[in-house]
Amino acid sequence: MPDEDAAAAAAGRQLTLTKPAGALGRLEELSVWMCAVQGQCPPTPFRHPALVIFAGDHGIARTASTSAYPPEVTAQMVANFVTGGAAANVLARQMGATVRVVDVSVDADAGYLDAIDPSVAARRIRRSCGSIDREDAMTLDETAAAIALGRALTHEEQSAGADLLIAGDMGIGNTTPAATLIGLLTGTDAATVTGRGTGIDDATLTRKASAVAAAMSRGAEALDDPTLLLARVGSPDIAAMTGYLAEASARGIPVILDGIVSCAAALVAERLSPGACDWWIAGHRSTEPAASAALTALSLDPLIDLGLRLGEGTGALLAIPLLTAAAGTLSEMATFDSAGVTDRDA
Amino acid sequence: MPDEDAAAAAAGRQLTLTKPAGALGRLEELSVWMCAVQGQCPPTPFRHPALVIFAGDHGIARTASTSAYPPEVTAQMVANFVTGGAAANVLARQMGATVRVVDVSVDADAGYLDAIDPSVAARRIRRSCGSIDREDAMTLDETAAAIALGRALTHEEQSAGADLLIAGDMGIGNTTPAATLIGLLTGTDAATVTGRGTGIDDATLTRKASAVAAAMSRGAEALDDPTLLLARVGSPDIAAMTGYLAEASARGIPVILDGIVSCAAALVAERLSPGACDWWIAGHRSTEPAASAALTALSLDPLIDLGLRLGEGTGALLAIPLLTAAAGTLSEMATFDSAGVTDRDA
Repeated sequence: MPDEDAAAAAAGRQLTLTKPAGALGRLEELSVWMCAVQGQCPPTPFRHPALVIFAGDHGIARTASTSAYPPEVTAQMVANFVTGGAAANVLARQMGATVRVVDVSVDADAGYLDAIDPSVAARRIRRSCGSIDREDAMTLDETAAAIALGRALTHEEQSAGADLLIAGDMGIGNTTPAATLIGLLTGTDAATVTGRGTGIDDATLTRKASAVAAAMSRGAEALDDPTLLLARVGSPDIAAMTGYLAEASARGIPVILDGIVSCAAALVAERLSPGACDWWIAGHRSTEPAASAALTALSLDPLIDLGLRLGEGTGALLAIPLLTAAAGTLSEMATFDSAGVTDRDA
Repeated sequence: MPDEDAAAAAAGRQLTLTKPAGALGRLEELSVWMCAVQGQCPPTPFRHPALVIFAGDHGIARTASTSAYPPEVTAQMVANFVTGGAAANVLARQMGATVRVVDVSVDADAGYLDAIDPSVAARRIRRSCGSIDREDAMTLDETAAAIALGRALTHEEQSAGADLLIAGDMGIGNTTPAATLIGLLTGTDAATVTGRGTGIDDATLTRKASAVAAAMSRGAEALDDPTLLLARVGSPDIAAMTGYLAEASARGIPVILDGIVSCAAALVAERLSPGACDWWIAGHRSTEPAASAALTALSLDPLIDLGLRLGEGTGALLAIPLLTAAAGTLSEMATFDSAGVTDRDA
């Protein structure tokens, strides 16, 4: 559990700083959360944010064409992450975050990254996954292996010094299983949780909503078993992300959630490890309706709302300066006493 | 006028980057604005943001007690800015912005800053100002001098290398003239534009709304003459800020607006220099209702909405990393061609 004493100390310290009580709005709440997850007051800015991007393909994208882009884009974008050209790379450089991309279930020939970084694909769970409107995404063994991979990645990032984790996603079609999981775990109907993803047209949206509805029917019986649920209507990449998020809270590492895919994994992780969400904040509000449904269910209010719908961890990365601002104001501002400023009760 | 060709080039370049069109949401709009105000595509991050804090006292705070804090806090906070202990100082350090505080009309004895930085008070227009519910804030000559001071400050900041300006405010009672100006210039009634400022109770809010209503009556005849309007129901600090903002657009320097006080000055500056608002973005949405009314009138949609109500430029400073992110993604991301990623039309 986050440290309640540190949180109380932070809330008390806020009242001594040279500003009207509450005038820094949600920055003050954020500073309290930082103290709680760091177990200290004042907090320090996070020095080693780490973004892990979970890449995978989805059978549903081929069978039902639920995306505006062809599946080969997943592998191409994995290469783009490795060479530093994606939006997440640019923002991570700005924010001082490391980027690691992991091929969990990309639909590409072995060796496709040999020329740039073969390690990225070395731990692949399987190639793509089943079309969840009609078949399971993967076996229970594969699901367990994917969750274990995610947990191992958390451990590895922590060992490398990470003090803040972000889960990014890359996978053509991945908003279909994400919407399915969120629909099931929040009790929201398929039409409501289905969004336009990369920017699909009306006909594709209708097809996608049907696929989500079919997948939700297939997953309904598995609601009480997170592993079975992921096997039926999830995907290897989302299962790995679930393990990563659950392990982060188990290890006391704070997390910034990103968009719909990380929100779906977060809902499942909260089922695996109730209370895990105390270690998380929501970086931004994606335009995907399912992301908002998930955040409401997790009682998380996003920090940024700028109409992003890219994934990759981009919306979470944008929130990092707000954490630095929250820590900085709580740590560095003068107090009424130290600055000789008259408080309202004087 | 901002550069339309650079803006068009930016919008075109966004379509070539390795992401679905529009997936970075308002970061894409921001990148287009940056290219327009910089006259180049791609843009560069702003390297020298400069915050000028306009400090002044307000007769209304003494006669009608419209604030939760006593007027002597203004001078105390000016000293706090000089010694670097205020929230704006902390955030400016984080964002790489310079901070300059100018005593435009503080109600303090001459020499109160002699021990730390007498230059801050060397250009004071007058000591405090009239209580605008019953008398003019200042003379027309004082108003002209205050506007000229603001214009000179813009010139000085530009000469010192500033490529982005922020107007911050400090002054117990300053939300009363700000709400009055915004009420008049947006045609909104006093009850709607009057907010809780530093956190006033219900009785003070009622008193403040009456003061705003009386001031709006006094100012109504001056609506078409910005200088007369400022003299009647503004204040020296807001007049200086108005000159600063008008001069920034005249010189082609972009601005991030902050909360209610900078929004009030911006509305007047737009009257002085129609079209000035093309050079501005809104950093955040203050909890003060008048700030939102002003932004709506200026057709500006704020970037951050975290419940801040501190002023000082804090909400504008928080938006700087979003500009850096907008410039970085447009400048540094790989294109579909360069990264060998398949576009949706392929």
